[in-house]
Amino acid sequence: MSQADKMQERGTITPRAENYSQWYLDVIREADLAEPAEVVKGCMVIKPNGYSIWQQIQRDLDDRFKETGHKNAYFPMLIPMSFIEKEAEHVEGFSPELAVVTHAGGKKLEEPYVIRPTSETIIGYFFSKWIQSWRDLPLLINQWANVMRWELKTRMFLRTGEFLWQEGHTAHASHDEAMVEAQKMLGVYADFAEQVMAMPVVKGDKSETEKFAGAERSMTIEAMMQNGMALQSGTSHDLGQNFGRAFDVRFQNRDGELEYVWQTSWGVSTRLVGGLIMTHSDDSGLVLPPRLAPVHVVIVPIYRKAAQRAEVLGAAEKIAAELRAQTLYGRRLDVEVDDREEYKPGYKFYYWERRGVPLRLELGPRDMESRQVMARGRTGTFAEKQAWSWDGLSEKVLSMLEAMQGELLESARARREEMSVQVDDYDQFKSYYGEGRSRFSYAHWCGDAACEAKIKEDTKATIRCIPWEREEESGSCMVCGKPSKGRVLIAKAY
Amino acid sequence: MSQADKMQERGTITPRAENYSQWYLDVIREADLAEPAEVVKGCMVIKPNGYSIWQQIQRDLDDRFKETGHKNAYFPMLIPMSFIEKEAEHVEGFSPELAVVTHAGGKKLEEPYVIRPTSETIIGYFFSKWIQSWRDLPLLINQWANVMRWELKTRMFLRTGEFLWQEGHTAHASHDEAMVEAQKMLGVYADFAEQVMAMPVVKGDKSETEKFAGAERSMTIEAMMQNGMALQSGTSHDLGQNFGRAFDVRFQNRDGELEYVWQTSWGVSTRLVGGLIMTHSDDSGLVLPPRLAPVHVVIVPIYRKAAQRAEVLGAAEKIAAELRAQTLYGRRLDVEVDDREEYKPGYKFYYWERRGVPLRLELGPRDMESRQVMARGRTGTFAEKQAWSWDGLSEKVLSMLEAMQGELLESARARREEMSVQVDDYDQFKSYYGEGRSRFSYAHWCGDAACEAKIKEDTKATIRCIPWEREEESGSCMVCGKPSKGRVLIAKAY
Repeated sequence: MSQADKMQERGTITPRAENYSQWYLDVIREADLAEPAEVVKGCMVIKPNGYSIWQQIQRDLDDRFKETGHKNAYFPMLIPMSFIEKEAEHVEGFSPELAVVTHAGGKKLEEPYVIRPTSETIIGYFFSKWIQSWRDLPLLINQWANVMRWELKTRMFLRTGEFLWQEGHTAHASHDEAMVEAQKMLGVYADFAEQVMAMPVVKGDKSETEKFAGAERSMTIEAMMQNGMALQSGTSHDLGQNFGRAFDVRFQNRDGELEYVWQTSWGVSTRLVGGLIMTHSDDSGLVLPPRLAPVHVVIVPIYRKAAQRAEVLGAAEKIAAELRAQTLYGRRLDVEVDDREEYKPGYKFYYWERRGVPLRLELGPRDMESRQVMARGRTGTFAEKQAWSWDGLSEKVLSMLEAMQGELLESARARREEMSVQVDDYDQFKSYYGEGRSRFSYAHWCGDAACEAKIKEDTKATIRCIPWEREEESGSCMVCGKPSKGRVLIAKAY
Repeated sequence: MSQADKMQERGTITPRAENYSQWYLDVIREADLAEPAEVVKGCMVIKPNGYSIWQQIQRDLDDRFKETGHKNAYFPMLIPMSFIEKEAEHVEGFSPELAVVTHAGGKKLEEPYVIRPTSETIIGYFFSKWIQSWRDLPLLINQWANVMRWELKTRMFLRTGEFLWQEGHTAHASHDEAMVEAQKMLGVYADFAEQVMAMPVVKGDKSETEKFAGAERSMTIEAMMQNGMALQSGTSHDLGQNFGRAFDVRFQNRDGELEYVWQTSWGVSTRLVGGLIMTHSDDSGLVLPPRLAPVHVVIVPIYRKAAQRAEVLGAAEKIAAELRAQTLYGRRLDVEVDDREEYKPGYKFYYWERRGVPLRLELGPRDMESRQVMARGRTGTFAEKQAWSWDGLSEKVLSMLEAMQGELLESARARREEMSVQVDDYDQFKSYYGEGRSRFSYAHWCGDAACEAKIKEDTKATIRCIPWEREEESGSCMVCGKPSKGRVLIAKAY
């Protein structure tokens, strides 16, 4: 294959400024993260590069859930149709999206099953068997699972028919305790998003309209994508006693009285991978924070003559072995030596760049003499090539990766600051959301669903949340002028 | 709650000699591993104690798959019905067991989907898009997923409608290479079963009759349960070019010619948890090999007076902290201090015994004075109580757990030897399988499906495999007297 062929094979990435949606799809394709499964409506195949990011996310979150006292379990993916109908708001919210199994084992079923869109109902059923007394509480369960929601408009990772997620389900003896749990888990998500994904988020409450179907109160973390749109990245719900009542989950309290349990549920999904892409990647392809990068470092050996090959490769492998003995954020460094003979170095540079590997080390005959490597970070202040001596290389690599992790978060924070505004005038507000534009607006809102609906109708932007960290500041609703107690976060959202 | 109440709450475990099937269900219930999900036909809930064993299995196998060059991916769980029909034997084998989605998003679907019973077909479809040239081969993929097979007779963990598993799917440029892969992965399973699960297995080929629907050749690991029955614990298939042809997966070989790929698939499932139970557990409940035990050590503090409590608990926590810093088989020791005030020590002993915790340490006021603990292993030579000094306790604990891991394997091996026979006379053979009895028989078989069917009809025992490690020994078929080249393994099976 000629170099020209390879350039073509490489494919192109549409610049963000030209077409952000196409750029997103191009990055996914060129980094080989996933592809649409056009034979299964609205679904996707998560390819190895994409799945290994998800697996890193899983392992990190799983540890955090265990540290906060939760245990994993697994419930059936099929739910009797009648279960979904037991909680009035729940069935209303989910029935348009259900996939239904009507036949099995060659026969028509007496009662159809739905593929779980979420598991509050089936878990509620089992909680009612497991919980008798206050001694059985709190019950703190998490499930890693696939779920299915038959969506009309899908977008890879962000909204697909089937997706992978975790769903926490807990039962408590008091409303207060359930609230503490729901807030705590939102905090776990926020900390994970910022520290691991380097994706800053705003924590807050959903409005009544945007609540989870069946919840008393829904909390969310909202992240800003590079185009100023919001991504709801994780939610945590105070379910009150709604599912307790629907599934008769009662316990004997310390006073000997029967009481319905107070429940929470909370989840994040493969959608996070989409958020990761849209937070950090650039016109050259994927950018990954080191804590989630499946490959931390790629070493590209460079040689002209076959005679140099063995020597350069030998040194590359030696450096790789040294680096692989290092630990970053509790995980061994993952180092690739790209020794493929059929490709030239230039091709390899682009190959790994598109895939978001945080650090590239080049090693050629001249570097052998001066016992150094040429180091180039994928992004930020590290993108300028530097010569690093073999001595102390591991420390350099580790500190550079740690610095890049921090820099990515800072840069996402800075962009968010730049694209956030406080606005009081409704016409000015509307001007922010024309022609596919978005930003984070903080505006006064009276709390009425009518004003919320008007904002959405006029601009397609929605109230993302009532931020937890906001100043109590009296003002007037941007739409109707009625009194407001503080600003809410508004943006277009995925 | 009185002690008597607690004794009752504890429930009973039917002795194995009395009713092995009931014993199995009792152990699952008393160790709180799982429960039937009677509202979803043939399915089960995997409770936290059961799921954490599965998660240990997953992590260990996942590392082994990665070490052998495989990468994880995720494919849709829904498969168009027409896909299943593309490979003639495949559809014949699986169609009686399919669960079918006919409606979704409030509408009847034009083409129904089935919930994957296994993913050869959908993965074949994507392989045909990903593979063009010999350069794209081998393609080595693994998937962790749930699958659904609508079975008539189910048994917890061993055979359930929905189950969790991994399925490896690989494509190769030659039949030889595919065979090497299929054999290698069976070897990975066998090594895992013996080294991690302490469950010895026989590696071998399935007969034509027992092959996977769509395979050229199926290989299996067969383990012996305590009642002499066999458990097919993992399989690896040489798919030949069958799915390559069905899904047009072709590649340009080094000579520039188009050729169908050669594929393999291989899988193990939550069935392994059932095998684990039936290999090691006893009439007192679950027994777990330390490598898979979610909790390695439980410390039970003993005190009569409230005044002693703080002191004993303090020492227990200190010992726990020291142990938690230790690593066994690459995993930190998991240590519980059972400080529950509402239960007495005797109850706690039984509680952890039923759950299979390998080592119990008791710590009372007298032990405090002599700076020791009373140690009791769950099984084998360690079941006798010993006094261990606080000095050098970590080393003692680690070496005891390692020894127990080895002893469990040896004891399972010894039992298998004891319950294995070479048999040549068919009447004698039949006598081994009356009244629910079973053992491993090694007998000559001519290779005819008719004799295989007769064995099954007469005894319910089946040819489990043609063992890889067998002596080439000429003999006569036990059933028909025709020549045979070696002995096959026969047993009743789950």
